Amino acid sequence: MWADLAAIGKDPSSGGYHRGGWTPTERACTEWFTTQCTTRGLSLESDGLGNLVAWWGSTDVPGVVTGSHLDSVIDGGAFDGPLGVVSALAAVDRLRAEGFVPSVPIGVGAFVEEEGSRFGMPCLGSRVATGVLTADKALGLKDRSGVPLADALSELGIDPAGVGPSPLLERMGTFVELHVEQGRALTAPVGVASAIWPHGRFRFTFTGEANHAGTTLMEDRHDPMLTYAMTALAANKQARLAGARATFGRLSVEPNGTNAVPSQVTAWLDARAATDEVLQSLLSAITRQAVERAERDGTSVEVTPESVSPIVEFPSGLRDRLAAVLDDAPVLPTGAGHDAGVFSDAGIPTAMLFVRNPTGVSHSPAEHAEMDDCLAGVDALAAVLKDLAK
Amino acid sequence: MWADLAAIGKDPSSGGYHRGGWTPTERACTEWFTTQCTTRGLSLESDGLGNLVAWWGSTDVPGVVTGSHLDSVIDGGAFDGPLGVVSALAAVDRLRAEGFVPSVPIGVGAFVEEEGSRFGMPCLGSRVATGVLTADKALGLKDRSGVPLADALSELGIDPAGVGPSPLLERMGTFVELHVEQGRALTAPVGVASAIWPHGRFRFTFTGEANHAGTTLMEDRHDPMLTYAMTALAANKQARLAGARATFGRLSVEPNGTNAVPSQVTAWLDARAATDEVLQSLLSAITRQAVERAERDGTSVEVTPESVSPIVEFPSGLRDRLAAVLDDAPVLPTGAGHDAGVFSDAGIPTAMLFVRNPTGVSHSPAEHAEMDDCLAGVDALAAVLKDLAK
Repeated sequence: MWADLAAIGKDPSSGGYHRGGWTPTERACTEWFTTQCTTRGLSLESDGLGNLVAWWGSTDVPGVVTGSHLDSVIDGGAFDGPLGVVSALAAVDRLRAEGFVPSVPIGVGAFVEEEGSRFGMPCLGSRVATGVLTADKALGLKDRSGVPLADALSELGIDPAGVGPSPLLERMGTFVELHVEQGRALTAPVGVASAIWPHGRFRFTFTGEANHAGTTLMEDRHDPMLTYAMTALAANKQARLAGARATFGRLSVEPNGTNAVPSQVTAWLDARAATDEVLQSLLSAITRQAVERAERDGTSVEVTPESVSPIVEFPSGLRDRLAAVLDDAPVLPTGAGHDAGVFSDAGIPTAMLFVRNPTGVSHSPAEHAEMDDCLAGVDALAAVLKDLAK
Repeated sequence: MWADLAAIGKDPSSGGYHRGGWTPTERACTEWFTTQCTTRGLSLESDGLGNLVAWWGSTDVPGVVTGSHLDSVIDGGAFDGPLGVVSALAAVDRLRAEGFVPSVPIGVGAFVEEEGSRFGMPCLGSRVATGVLTADKALGLKDRSGVPLADALSELGIDPAGVGPSPLLERMGTFVELHVEQGRALTAPVGVASAIWPHGRFRFTFTGEANHAGTTLMEDRHDPMLTYAMTALAANKQARLAGARATFGRLSVEPNGTNAVPSQVTAWLDARAATDEVLQSLLSAITRQAVERAERDGTSVEVTPESVSPIVEFPSGLRDRLAAVLDDAPVLPTGAGHDAGVFSDAGIPTAMLFVRNPTGVSHSPAEHAEMDDCLAGVDALAAVLKDLAK
């Protein structure tokens, strides 16, 4: 299965993956998933947005769903997402080979646009499915070319009218997502998630005045690039001080000409911290420094929250049960957002398994997990499913 | 004439102009110019790249050419370029109405892609015409979509084989370019140029390691955005200290995703100073600070000169003659590059007239010149042409 997916959407020069939601490469992964499920005789169901769950066993009663996502960040790694989907199918294969007969159905899920790399909204599929994001808002989201989600769906023959809270979730009694760990915190092959850090995406719009780069005196300028540059350095410093994370990884400059002082710099801050309070005070500290610098530069800065997710604490009973099944596997929080967090917030009993990441590198072509650890992940997931569906 | 051009390539929201070389809007300006010349019975000649000179009078002997360019920076002002072309036509109209009979031909010129906003090379038309840029190099330049100039020309039915040193220049005995001033240094309606500051464009490539924005510890990162941010602030400070100009106005981020630490930031430095020595020491100071910061960030930085133009000192005899004709008009240098600088370097006796810019704003939708000053510019240009062609 890993070999099947290896080539889809891979940039030959960087080695990274490009699988934005509803793009041809992501669709190819979905096609592959569909084939895998039908070949196994699983009963595949889709909701109006394209979230998929393939059932093993009766679909009359709620069951245990496991899975993850097939989309990627821009130039991302091979493991983030697909590892959870492939491991879910492999775990089902394992249980069937053992002759295990589940008492409740087991579903294998693949949820769309988890990374938000195309439409800017992380966990888009699970947010729409749970209803925390309305169909209207979702359909109006635009990609970087200005294409609204509604048009992207229509082009693929998907009727935007069908988008909304997902009937698939009615039978999701429990959800377990296996995922590659994305830091270096996990030293055993497999661990269990305790929580997802609070996470915010904030758009910083720095506005100044375009001008000639050669003739405008330095002291006459209102250059928003300087305000941005100071803010980027401040964000890094404040995150270090707070034991948190702050990243400016996406930027848009107007007019973006070599010989013009920019009129506007738009920069997206990704900020995460162990608690909601620390996240809020981190944002406040960065904003304050941006505003102070803007006064000095004669520019202005506007901060718009694009998405803010409070802390997700996975239910402790389920978490402890998984850890016990896995011989007291380590329990740890993560700074990365996941569909599991959205489902947990929606009241679905949810847990996560992490597979060790030896370098901690993620969202990068260099993302890696050892094959032995991946196989340990399949073992662990199979054991957990067996326990939950016994 | 001003009203004719006002709407072409204007962004209705910003009010700025988008007239990149060989784009439909720039072509529309060229069409307009062609019509203006033929309507006046001027004899229009083009070279293989699309530089144009329209002659009044015999074309057997070298004459006096005046004019400027019709392309714009991205979201630029109305005056930069077109003012020189419109004033040239208006000055010819004025001289004809007066019954002036020139002893040498007078040419009105429009030179392509002066701003370099599409193919990244300022004064592209004049550089190719004079032979300082070879046809091979020019044709291989690519726009931001990756389209080579050769293909852009072919698409318009222009044979790339015809690109090269321009026969038009053989009859350019003298060149006078009228241009809106681009700083606030000129306090009279019209002035005469003494020199063009040395000017360099340098590409700074900051390379780090892509990683997950949520899970990667701040201390584990190799974030090239931080190295860039410090360099942008350093450039500003060093330019202030040197009485020079340094601008980072164009940026490209890879992968440019909100939730990924960038792997690479490419930033273009536009640097100008009063002398070649100051420009060189400015670049050295900025580069040194970039390299020091890169060591701290665990990133690397590579600096590539894309174009470096030494100081242009316009010939003093011609300059003083113009100033005398204009009742001792002020003489001043400029930080902006112009085709006039390229022609002067190629040994063509060249001068420039500046029209006052009350705010000093240029390369911006807010660029402005008062109508009275523009008319004074036409008067001045007519007087200069009359003197040079008497």
